[in-house]
Amino acid sequence: MNGVLAAVATPMRDDLAVDRHAFAQHCRRLLDAGCHGLGIFGTTGEANSLSVDERVEAIEALVADGLPADVLLPGTGACALPDAVRLSQAALALGAPGVLALPPFYYKGVSDDGLFRFFAELIERVGDDRLRLFLYHIPPQTVLGFSPELIGRLLDAYPGTIAGTKDSAGDAARIKRICTDFPQLTVFAGTEKFLLDTLRWGGDGCISATVNVTAPQAREVYDRFVAGEDAEPAQAALTATREFLDRFPAIPAMKAALRAQTGDEVWRNLRPPLDALDDTRVRELLSGL
Amino acid sequence: MNGVLAAVATPMRDDLAVDRHAFAQHCRRLLDAGCHGLGIFGTTGEANSLSVDERVEAIEALVADGLPADVLLPGTGACALPDAVRLSQAALALGAPGVLALPPFYYKGVSDDGLFRFFAELIERVGDDRLRLFLYHIPPQTVLGFSPELIGRLLDAYPGTIAGTKDSAGDAARIKRICTDFPQLTVFAGTEKFLLDTLRWGGDGCISATVNVTAPQAREVYDRFVAGEDAEPAQAALTATREFLDRFPAIPAMKAALRAQTGDEVWRNLRPPLDALDDTRVRELLSGL
Repeated sequence: MNGVLAAVATPMRDDLAVDRHAFAQHCRRLLDAGCHGLGIFGTTGEANSLSVDERVEAIEALVADGLPADVLLPGTGACALPDAVRLSQAALALGAPGVLALPPFYYKGVSDDGLFRFFAELIERVGDDRLRLFLYHIPPQTVLGFSPELIGRLLDAYPGTIAGTKDSAGDAARIKRICTDFPQLTVFAGTEKFLLDTLRWGGDGCISATVNVTAPQAREVYDRFVAGEDAEPAQAALTATREFLDRFPAIPAMKAALRAQTGDEVWRNLRPPLDALDDTRVRELLSGL
Repeated sequence: MNGVLAAVATPMRDDLAVDRHAFAQHCRRLLDAGCHGLGIFGTTGEANSLSVDERVEAIEALVADGLPADVLLPGTGACALPDAVRLSQAALALGAPGVLALPPFYYKGVSDDGLFRFFAELIERVGDDRLRLFLYHIPPQTVLGFSPELIGRLLDAYPGTIAGTKDSAGDAARIKRICTDFPQLTVFAGTEKFLLDTLRWGGDGCISATVNVTAPQAREVYDRFVAGEDAEPAQAALTATREFLDRFPAIPAMKAALRAQTGDEVWRNLRPPLDALDDTRVRELLSGL
């Protein structure tokens, strides 16, 4: 699992239930637009605003609707160990090649020992050699995260299972360090701004909210890098798009852009506590794009 | 619902399941020690480390085991609206007179509009006139919280339903302001340090982790205040105990104290990511108590 992955937005009906049809359609469109894989039910996917049942049912529906399970990297983050276990087992049962795991994010100021114990219990309770955990480092939402020391401890204890990381700290120096210190880890930058740098440092790609609209641009950077061609101009264009998008809150902006792109009103809806962009901001976004 | 409430610790077996027998026993002991009510499944109760099913089953078991539902203030906090709805409905069905509701705590930097919409949806989806929401303000864990403006908006929109608040910001001036601005609200301080002040400001009591061990002392302050007697010396003694306890992480310290007090090894266990106190710290705690 590497390359360009979208952190997929989740379409929701007016009653805020996941719109199964629009979800499968959006996932197929992202693959057609160049995504190697789909990071469903992460932060962008409003995963933690959905119940565990809703997440399991929606992933099952995606696969039943014909999405290939081997491109899916479902988020299985949860504060409660039994929820993380159940989500991981459901993803494995469907054939997902990996899962993206948040640290338990309710308590703040917890120790690396406590976080290690959480993941050790998770791995042992899932009890399946096929489990591939991608550590989801996103301190802007979770506050706590994965220190390099914790990543090292987890890799030493579970070398076959700890497969990768998505690093959404927004800190290029940290991504470089993780790529350097842990070459066995599949490293995804959390923003396509760092895509080319991450690849040069030995990392593997990006998983990003804005890839919902930048997929073709991001794919061009990746393909040029892999082909040994000059990827700088493509990265500069991608970075410019991303920097424009960074002026807006990511999830509402992606939904507004997808509404305009598809004409599907289902993209109007976000689960609270997230708000939709107001009309002025939507116009600003669309004229900029 | 007012007075001295313990934020009840949850006993867990070696497999980390809730120990039903020890839980009921501990709840009864807290009532015997002077608690007016029991804030089960809050932060101290490791609620967010339990699945929704586990929380619902444990509350049902408590009532089945003879705990009077009318002393229970169950935490129903969840990031996902369907989870908050289900937990609230389960608490109502059992006869709990109120529920303690966290803001949805995954996303940071969300607007008051978004939080308002979350609680409006929650109240409308629960759809039960008996619902009494206590707003659980605890920014040390959730980062976001209830601004006075948001509390005012919710009270205006749902005057019968927004019943109270537990304020765990650790800020006496804020509690005073909430008591003053919203006299119709039942206000609990999140620490017994502010118990007497809160009562003087027109508030109603405290809900606190450390009441798991300070219940008789806190009750003395409350009873003296209500009787019009001098409650200062009792508050000074209570504050001294609390300040000693504040040197330790609250949940591990409560479990260590309860293990020593009851001799029940079930209190050794915490769900990750929380760690038990090490032996040196346990000795320091117990000799101080």
